Amino acid sequence: MFSPTAAAATPSPSQIIPEDEEYYSSWSLFLVCMLLILSLWTSYYLQIKRIRAVHETLVSIFAGMAVGLIVRLAPGTVIREMLTFKHTLFFNLLLPPIILNSGYELKQENFFRNFGSILTFAFLGTFISAVGVGVLVYIYSFLGLESLDITLLECLTFGSTLSATDPVTILAIFNQYKVDPKLYTVIFGESLLNDAVSIVMYETLTRFHGTEIYLSSIFHGVGIFLLSFSVSMALGVAFGLATSLLLKHSSLNLFPRIESCLVALTAYTCYFFSNGLSMSGIVSLLFCGITLKHYAYHTMSRRTQRTTKYIFATLAQLSENFIFIYLGLALFTSAPTSENVTSYVKPLFITITTIAVVFTRYAAVFPLSEAINFFQKHARGQRVEELPHSYQMMLFWAGLRGAVGVALAAGFQGNNANILRTTVLAVVVLTVLIFGGTTARMLEILGIRTGVEDEAASDSDDEDGVMLGGGSRWPRQSTSLNGGRWGGYSDEEPSYLANAQTFAGRIGSHYTSNYNHHTSNPIPPMSPQHGVFSAASSESDSDAEVLPLASASRDPSSLGNPPHSAPPHQTTFGEDGKWFQALDERYLLPLFSNATASRTFHARRARRSLGPSGSNGLLGGSTIVDRREEVTYVFKIKPM
Amino acid sequence: MFSPTAAAATPSPSQIIPEDEEYYSSWSLFLVCMLLILSLWTSYYLQIKRIRAVHETLVSIFAGMAVGLIVRLAPGTVIREMLTFKHTLFFNLLLPPIILNSGYELKQENFFRNFGSILTFAFLGTFISAVGVGVLVYIYSFLGLESLDITLLECLTFGSTLSATDPVTILAIFNQYKVDPKLYTVIFGESLLNDAVSIVMYETLTRFHGTEIYLSSIFHGVGIFLLSFSVSMALGVAFGLATSLLLKHSSLNLFPRIESCLVALTAYTCYFFSNGLSMSGIVSLLFCGITLKHYAYHTMSRRTQRTTKYIFATLAQLSENFIFIYLGLALFTSAPTSENVTSYVKPLFITITTIAVVFTRYAAVFPLSEAINFFQKHARGQRVEELPHSYQMMLFWAGLRGAVGVALAAGFQGNNANILRTTVLAVVVLTVLIFGGTTARMLEILGIRTGVEDEAASDSDDEDGVMLGGGSRWPRQSTSLNGGRWGGYSDEEPSYLANAQTFAGRIGSHYTSNYNHHTSNPIPPMSPQHGVFSAASSESDSDAEVLPLASASRDPSSLGNPPHSAPPHQTTFGEDGKWFQALDERYLLPLFSNATASRTFHARRARRSLGPSGSNGLLGGSTIVDRREEVTYVFKIKPM
Repeated sequence: MFSPTAAAATPSPSQIIPEDEEYYSSWSLFLVCMLLILSLWTSYYLQIKRIRAVHETLVSIFAGMAVGLIVRLAPGTVIREMLTFKHTLFFNLLLPPIILNSGYELKQENFFRNFGSILTFAFLGTFISAVGVGVLVYIYSFLGLESLDITLLECLTFGSTLSATDPVTILAIFNQYKVDPKLYTVIFGESLLNDAVSIVMYETLTRFHGTEIYLSSIFHGVGIFLLSFSVSMALGVAFGLATSLLLKHSSLNLFPRIESCLVALTAYTCYFFSNGLSMSGIVSLLFCGITLKHYAYHTMSRRTQRTTKYIFATLAQLSENFIFIYLGLALFTSAPTSENVTSYVKPLFITITTIAVVFTRYAAVFPLSEAINFFQKHARGQRVEELPHSYQMMLFWAGLRGAVGVALAAGFQGNNANILRTTVLAVVVLTVLIFGGTTARMLEILGIRTGVEDEAASDSDDEDGVMLGGGSRWPRQSTSLNGGRWGGYSDEEPSYLANAQTFAGRIGSHYTSNYNHHTSNPIPPMSPQHGVFSAASSESDSDAEVLPLASASRDPSSLGNPPHSAPPHQTTFGEDGKWFQALDERYLLPLFSNATASRTFHARRARRSLGPSGSNGLLGGSTIVDRREEVTYVFKIKPM
Repeated sequence: MFSPTAAAATPSPSQIIPEDEEYYSSWSLFLVCMLLILSLWTSYYLQIKRIRAVHETLVSIFAGMAVGLIVRLAPGTVIREMLTFKHTLFFNLLLPPIILNSGYELKQENFFRNFGSILTFAFLGTFISAVGVGVLVYIYSFLGLESLDITLLECLTFGSTLSATDPVTILAIFNQYKVDPKLYTVIFGESLLNDAVSIVMYETLTRFHGTEIYLSSIFHGVGIFLLSFSVSMALGVAFGLATSLLLKHSSLNLFPRIESCLVALTAYTCYFFSNGLSMSGIVSLLFCGITLKHYAYHTMSRRTQRTTKYIFATLAQLSENFIFIYLGLALFTSAPTSENVTSYVKPLFITITTIAVVFTRYAAVFPLSEAINFFQKHARGQRVEELPHSYQMMLFWAGLRGAVGVALAAGFQGNNANILRTTVLAVVVLTVLIFGGTTARMLEILGIRTGVEDEAASDSDDEDGVMLGGGSRWPRQSTSLNGGRWGGYSDEEPSYLANAQTFAGRIGSHYTSNYNHHTSNPIPPMSPQHGVFSAASSESDSDAEVLPLASASRDPSSLGNPPHSAPPHQTTFGEDGKWFQALDERYLLPLFSNATASRTFHARRARRSLGPSGSNGLLGGSTIVDRREEVTYVFKIKPM
């Protein structure tokens, strides 16, 4: 937000006078901006042309590399020095928005429903991956094929760096195809927590750097890891809860500008405070984001809700692109001129590492999935498999690595730092290429259900429909007809005609809600480009779920699954986080949040969506529904 | 956004090892965040308690000074070094959001209506102020009372720094009291452009630093000034228009996330490009913001509109607070330990400068206003005075100085730099204290009309009501009843009950629009605190105008003016920018923007608001109104 590292770093004492420095910094920043624009534009182009095999990530890296090469070959070193890779920059400026946004975007209802599976994968899976890759790489370096002399500690650090999965490409495709929300949530939740786990693991291992390692160090390390993780988490939650209380018991929602700033500041304060205590700021930030979204979000004014959501999303997007561009740049600009860049690229080492990464992912996903299935079957008596084989395969496939790993690699020290860093970058690129490019095909091969409307998630995330913080909701309808733009689709703009007809069918109904995503829309989408159409839906996040199912089912890639069928084993959801949900609804939400009424409404909706025959009798359990109003709408629209 | 200066500055070679650096930087950033939170919280407190005499600006400065003092007295210099004032930080990171946001928030219809007055004050007024203060200060230093040895060039630079007015306090109060939009626009427009003018003037003068000055230098300087200003402006407009075209002819509005990032990036790219060409990036940014808002805004998707608006506003708010905090801090942290801080504070010099600033403001505002009145009377045959005496007095009163001046002062060089910097800070504080604290009282004394609903501006700025980029508009109503929160008011959440009644009265009406701000609301606001109520309205910017007039007229401070009376000389508006408006509506808007239909609608609304008897016959002139639809709403709401 406001340049932490700039305040921390005093200008270099090299021979640049201030005016020139400003001049050169302008040009280098102009370069970076242009690269960002290029990468975003490519991303747009790829999406509109429905090109799946290439991802913007790759474009960013290669664009960065191209510019880095030019800058390196060009005379003069000033711009090159300015573009040099800075570790602090990554940690204080680029990573926080990404993590914060992930925490903030998390679909909490789904997350808590699959809490057990997610935790298993995030902790055990990441641990298996880190240690597995570390040991395999150590064995390889021990063989001495490439005259690499890497210590076990370095190998483990390297392994932990490569354990943070970043399935952004896959999730984008999932969004587009409307893959079963359960699978989506497990993959997203895992990637979120395993970022945190691998960062703490990395930080723990870094502490041992330069010390002798004994067997006891393992216990010491595990202790530090657990302490660091839990304290950081507690700090994040504490900051989040404090902000929630503050927002609830003040009138800050009357001053949305101040409120927005305060919410954003809290998150960053939490991050710096945690870092200052030598804990993991990233983990604190993640949990602060989750807590803020869960408790504070519904107390905020409408404008603050939007502001925070949009700011975090935009900054995250920029940071993510920036990380890849910077990595491409750094490959050429960060090395001393005397050395040869190519000496850092060890193809065999890269291949071995990639194999190790894929192998440990395999060794983590399948056994852990079987364990989860076994537990669900025997301890809970669940008849349907919690994670069928196709889901396991997809989980395995979602093991691509991304920005977080690359950011962590920036902190490598020692003689092998550059080689390891290049290798991490190469492995990230390879996994994105291999796994990211083939996801759509894999979905088809595995026969995974697509075109599933995620009722609960769309509800809990569809805040644009909430008009009054208290009881009533402005119904938010599917956007399907739009007279204006060429695409026939635009963000957050309900079509009056479509609304009118859906509304008319419900005059006098007991409760008007945005429940009928499944109402078959009488007017088909006007756009002939269904591809663009559904791509758009994946972009507009909260609107993704609002898109009429018609477009999904007519999408050539929806694999012919009947879109209207209710998910078969949805009734078995909701076991993992039940104790927390009960505690939350009874004690925590009333204490920290204003959102009891709308929450209850959510809960009702969630229960209702379990079976299509869910009657009103099911809803009697909630005690706080008396603040709602009955709202009836009649719309009559005549085009002139 | 993404730390320009951090990329530009390599870490200091002092004895800090990287881990410690991160540790200390975390703490210093934590400190800064806490100060920001404190200042925002104070701002909230002051607003809710209706304390006008003290402004958050002062709190920020004093909080910064307190912490600066502690840091200075504390042992160790690491944190102190980190908190040291950086000029680049200001220019690349803090100033851009403020300027961009001003450009983006500008109410363009009003701006162009009062274009002539604004330009006169911005250029001539700033010139008079800069030269006046410079010469007066030079004479004072020539007298040798305080053994100051300041060159004429330094004095003029000093003067130009102190010429950027920043009436943020006054505008906040204006918003609250709903002062005549014309006066508001002239003051806001002047402050906006005179920031740009004084920055270019400052930069021009800085080029002469260290060279001999001849009489020819004046012409040289004026030439550089004009060239720099116009080229920078052209660059900004070019970037804005290019983005508008890009947005119009692409389908980027289907991908709001990418679109938002691109719009934000364009603005920054423009800034860096302009700086790279040694032009004024700030001026480019300002005009880029204005152009983006004017042409691109209506082509953007709804989400991008909100995202850009909220991001710019939030960043601007944070930057503004940060500048003042940082200034307070810098007073103690930037000086070498050997020197005494108090040696920079020259009370007499400060007094003289303040008097010079006030005097030149007086000498600029009154003659220029008379000239404008004379011109309007004789050249245009206007019967009512364009700027009556009370308005002139208020313009004079709005001459407080703020963040921009202080940021410019950070760039001072030479022996006297510290003294001049401290003086600028002190003058800013004094003007904010004297003029900011007394505005409400002045409004009363001068008998300036308050409680005026700015129809045209509320229309053009009330984008939250626009649902479809094309023809139809979702009616946006006054928010007056809200069952939920204590204040009875919350941002962007229309009350269904109020809506229902207003709507019901208009069934079958030809065109439903948010035109009836004046409809006397059947349900009075529930909140007993009208003060808080109207304070909230001034905060929520686009909602400020939507607040029912009832609350304004019941506000004890509305001075008993009949709120429903049409402004007496509003018919004489709209002369200044007419040629541009015609050109714009006929050629530019259709070429660069998608917003023809809604623009025409605005124009109609504007014309309609000229007289209460404006009939539909007036509307026949527009040719592009055929895309609108007739929308009729019937609302029936039963609280359960």
